[in-house]
Amino acid sequence: MIVMAKEEKQEEIKDFEMPEDFEGLVENYSAMGFQASHLSEAVEIMESMKKEKTTVFFGFTANLVASGIRGIIKEMCKSKFVDAIVTTAGALEHDIMKSHKPYLKGSFNADDVELHRKGINRIGNILVPNERYVYLEKFVQQEFKEIYKEKKCTCPKELSERFGRKLGEDSFLYWCAKNRIPVFCPGISDGAIGLQMYFFKQEHKDFCVDVTGDMKELADLTLNAEKTSAIILGGGISKHHIIGANLLRDGLDYAVYFTTAQEYDGSLSGAQTREAKSWGKIKEKAKSATVYGDAAISFPLAYACLKEKKII
Amino acid sequence: MIVMAKEEKQEEIKDFEMPEDFEGLVENYSAMGFQASHLSEAVEIMESMKKEKTTVFFGFTANLVASGIRGIIKEMCKSKFVDAIVTTAGALEHDIMKSHKPYLKGSFNADDVELHRKGINRIGNILVPNERYVYLEKFVQQEFKEIYKEKKCTCPKELSERFGRKLGEDSFLYWCAKNRIPVFCPGISDGAIGLQMYFFKQEHKDFCVDVTGDMKELADLTLNAEKTSAIILGGGISKHHIIGANLLRDGLDYAVYFTTAQEYDGSLSGAQTREAKSWGKIKEKAKSATVYGDAAISFPLAYACLKEKKII
Amino acid sequence: MIVMAKEEKQEEIKDFEMPEDFEGLVENYSAMGFQASHLSEAVEIMESMKKEKTTVFFGFTANLVASGIRGIIKEMCKSKFVDAIVTTAGALEHDIMKSHKPYLKGSFNADDVELHRKGINRIGNILVPNERYVYLEKFVQQEFKEIYKEKKCTCPKELSERFGRKLGEDSFLYWCAKNRIPVFCPGISDGAIGLQMYFFKQEHKDFCVDVTGDMKELADLTLNAEKTSAIILGGGISKHHIIGANLLRDGLDYAVYFTTAQEYDGSLSGAQTREAKSWGKIKEKAKSATVYGDAAISFPLAYACLKEKKII
Amino acid sequence: MIVMAKEEKQEEIKDFEMPEDFEGLVENYSAMGFQASHLSEAVEIMESMKKEKTTVFFGFTANLVASGIRGIIKEMCKSKFVDAIVTTAGALEHDIMKSHKPYLKGSFNADDVELHRKGINRIGNILVPNERYVYLEKFVQQEFKEIYKEKKCTCPKELSERFGRKLGEDSFLYWCAKNRIPVFCPGISDGAIGLQMYFFKQEHKDFCVDVTGDMKELADLTLNAEKTSAIILGGGISKHHIIGANLLRDGLDYAVYFTTAQEYDGSLSGAQTREAKSWGKIKEKAKSATVYGDAAISFPLAYACLKEKKII
Repeated sequence: MIVMAKEEKQEEIKDFEMPEDFEGLVENYSAMGFQASHLSEAVEIMESMKKEKTTVFFGFTANLVASGIRGIIKEMCKSKFVDAIVTTAGALEHDIMKSHKPYLKGSFNADDVELHRKGINRIGNILVPNERYVYLEKFVQQEFKEIYKEKKCTCPKELSERFGRKLGEDSFLYWCAKNRIPVFCPGISDGAIGLQMYFFKQEHKDFCVDVTGDMKELADLTLNAEKTSAIILGGGISKHHIIGANLLRDGLDYAVYFTTAQEYDGSLSGAQTREAKSWGKIKEKAKSATVYGDAAISFPLAYACLKEKKII
Repeated sequence: MIVMAKEEKQEEIKDFEMPEDFEGLVENYSAMGFQASHLSEAVEIMESMKKEKTTVFFGFTANLVASGIRGIIKEMCKSKFVDAIVTTAGALEHDIMKSHKPYLKGSFNADDVELHRKGINRIGNILVPNERYVYLEKFVQQEFKEIYKEKKCTCPKELSERFGRKLGEDSFLYWCAKNRIPVFCPGISDGAIGLQMYFFKQEHKDFCVDVTGDMKELADLTLNAEKTSAIILGGGISKHHIIGANLLRDGLDYAVYFTTAQEYDGSLSGAQTREAKSWGKIKEKAKSATVYGDAAISFPLAYACLKEKKII
Repeated sequence: MIVMAKEEKQEEIKDFEMPEDFEGLVENYSAMGFQASHLSEAVEIMESMKKEKTTVFFGFTANLVASGIRGIIKEMCKSKFVDAIVTTAGALEHDIMKSHKPYLKGSFNADDVELHRKGINRIGNILVPNERYVYLEKFVQQEFKEIYKEKKCTCPKELSERFGRKLGEDSFLYWCAKNRIPVFCPGISDGAIGLQMYFFKQEHKDFCVDVTGDMKELADLTLNAEKTSAIILGGGISKHHIIGANLLRDGLDYAVYFTTAQEYDGSLSGAQTREAKSWGKIKEKAKSATVYGDAAISFPLAYACLKEKKII
Repeated sequence: MIVMAKEEKQEEIKDFEMPEDFEGLVENYSAMGFQASHLSEAVEIMESMKKEKTTVFFGFTANLVASGIRGIIKEMCKSKFVDAIVTTAGALEHDIMKSHKPYLKGSFNADDVELHRKGINRIGNILVPNERYVYLEKFVQQEFKEIYKEKKCTCPKELSERFGRKLGEDSFLYWCAKNRIPVFCPGISDGAIGLQMYFFKQEHKDFCVDVTGDMKELADLTLNAEKTSAIILGGGISKHHIIGANLLRDGLDYAVYFTTAQEYDGSLSGAQTREAKSWGKIKEKAKSATVYGDAAISFPLAYACLKEKKII
């Protein structure tokens, strides 16, 4: 493993000094130690992803779309910084609903019974009034009807693309549709969209969502790329699906994880980039970083630095 | 919120005394404070689930099937303690591969590059030699072929049932198949099974896995039940799918979470049972508990107590 | 680092089977993976500590004395399983107050403002009515007066011993005093005892608590021991003080940590036993284990197993 | 508890937009949700602390002085942003040693046995060669000798002040000494300084460090202040000592915690500001915020924003 060779060769820890801009801040972080150093490494790796023209996979959990991180995700799709997205049904739903009306700021300590009586759903300290879900229902049912006229069987990628075409410029699905960035959603039936599928299928027994329908495109993306990279916010199915797909090409060349999950329980969500190397999901020599902490704090910093440097 | 009314009515914290058996241990935990009290509550709630003859949903993440927890999951299916399972593709895979040959004990600090060179995959401190995956490939391709002869389009529940019919008595899928316990797997295409689907589809373009195919059965289970309950180990898609499905009936009557994820990042994985009440995923008055810690330690205790009391 | 040599030599992960007793449970854990395996290792190491007649240092945080873990701590002192204790001022306080009257069971979600108005202090889901602190004040002031009659300057170890002599058999301080187990408390002035020192000193300017007064005894314990061991619950000053003292003898021979703190922030509380080896606080070849999770769940298990095996 | 009153009054969650400067970044965070919102609140509260001319207590753990955060701590002392510091022995030690020579950047995955053989101590991903401790020994022994010439009995605050007078302008102790900011260190004997005290005392039996010696000054600070505030990075003794001292005046008026510790184990380190209100350590109506995550990432952001706004 890594041991320092000679002291004189070793990088020094430096006391933080007030930076001039975001680039300066992240540079400062490099010599700070702990997760500040990891964040700085992650930014450097994201820079390399782009400079080396790798195919970039971007994964994130639904809660981040409910949060303001949606603005960054949108921007990364608009500017074509990423080549493919893997996310959850909830992420699509929040993108659709926030295109309609914003969510509200609440508190982790809210009285959930009281909220329930007022018809408000809580995601940490973010509130989603039921009215948003009423809108979602209409939106999604309309799409299903249109699709069903054309064919009985669709697939997650097609759904997300169709959703995107109907949304406004604040939506990441809009920009993915416009920029032909595929949005893979292997767990598409898990969430409000899934319940709507159930309702729709009650009347249209032969309606079908084939999750194997996306796989050739996902596989081709990894197989045809010279180099591949991953930016993964959070754990679960979107994390696993990206690194799993890269098994087909003997691993990612670059990978950064932003996570709050810990490795001690052996979960995939908590697994560090290190563990993925045993599987060949990340290449042995790949540059990778795991940044611990809420992505709502750390990812905007990474973004602001890359934006300032005109990498995004 | 909860405030003590009068001191004399309040339960006391009691110093731990050596118990005679697992039941005594859990009783002791009740008056210990912190997560020991939560574990004790969770056991009590699981007891109520059964006594009240509720429909019990059981969710867990794949890593727990890789661990020895698989033995408990199997037993809960064999004894019909649970009525439905929601889990991930990885959980099915580990069940199949461990039916073939055991996994091995390793270390969180293993050298992952070295492991990769030896063809060994790491899940925390559990090791899975590639040979297991070679077996899985054959097993799964054989199933796909058999299904394909009958029909072009299958669904996750059907797949898990078919897998189960081919496995031995140490497998939870075997007992689910035998006892007609549906195994829902909304993210079926995420994992090695998904890659095998991709390979199979290369040769059989019209092969299809319809994730909406399971939804009526899942919905009927929640809608027809007088009362429903959930036992959820870990987060991600299996957690969300269970509580999401119970929206259809205005919420679960009982719910216990065993988790390592924290709520501060607003993730679904970290959300406490409290948050689910705002959504109507858990009923306002439902008894519920969130037990923090690795389920590999806490869940066997809950199980041993319930088994001793002949609840399982 | 650790890589498996040959598959056939490797230990297998085994599915959990219902154990007959606590010893069986912990044996089962050994082959479970994740933290269950770590807990089993910790028990094995604690067994070795005793069999090899090492000098055992026992460290814990105050909240555990507020919880039912106090009963186990007491028992480990009563049975002379441990040779020295390092803990915080709060631990002494809770031991004194609980000797007077029990604490009460509350909820993490209690309304803290309401509690404040009722004169109740919250420690997680444990409640401490102000009446307990009124008792503590009297108890401690009485001690200070008695000491002051004898001498102006005392030290933490002397204080804890004197406290113990006045307490009942449910108190760990009582058994430490009786069994001549020194209780070191390097942060003695931090807590209610500290505030009482301040009040006492207002009237007795030359009252003094010399924290260097204990150090020779602590140093002698480590220097004169053939082998030393540590059982450490939680982080902070009691953890650090034990491993720091063992620098004097080039490290502990055995060490187990039970902790919820993570290593990613570089804190001493989150540091694994591994990190202590770089310092020489734990010997290079020492057997050690870090068990993640609330000690209120995991430590009683370790205790019950050792008790059953008549090691404690 | 907190429930939204009317939707129209509620603040909205806003998608992140590229900010111009640090102030813009933190403003953006306010409407982001999750810990980004908490960080923004913490900054706002720190601004109020200063505008309302409160007496500011600043607490932090030793690892942060080992990291680049030391530069910020120094600056907050230099600019007299804070009125008193409570910290650990390790914090003093790192400040002294880094005044001598920088620490080095390593990796969390380093081989600790190898490091030990090379005489390098690891703190997360920060490396401290033994040479630094050799320097510390000389420095501290020299101080003890000088003090001992004057008097037999000293106290922590006096020690830290004397250390500061000998250090350079990169040291926070230097600025505290210069600006008459007391540095309280209730656990002064825990660490390398403590070991040096032990060695010194071997030859000077009547050398004494009275931890009650600081308490009047600490108490006076809280009692004489019109309003008090706390900025607390990390947990343990420095956190507790600050909030405990403020019991004397019925609680802090403002408090911000930056922490990685979770509340579920009932530890003081993991307790939220909410819990402190039940004790009267923080006032019922005090504005307070708990920001989860490594302070090495989040605290520089808070600092950069306050610096830019000329609050620091």
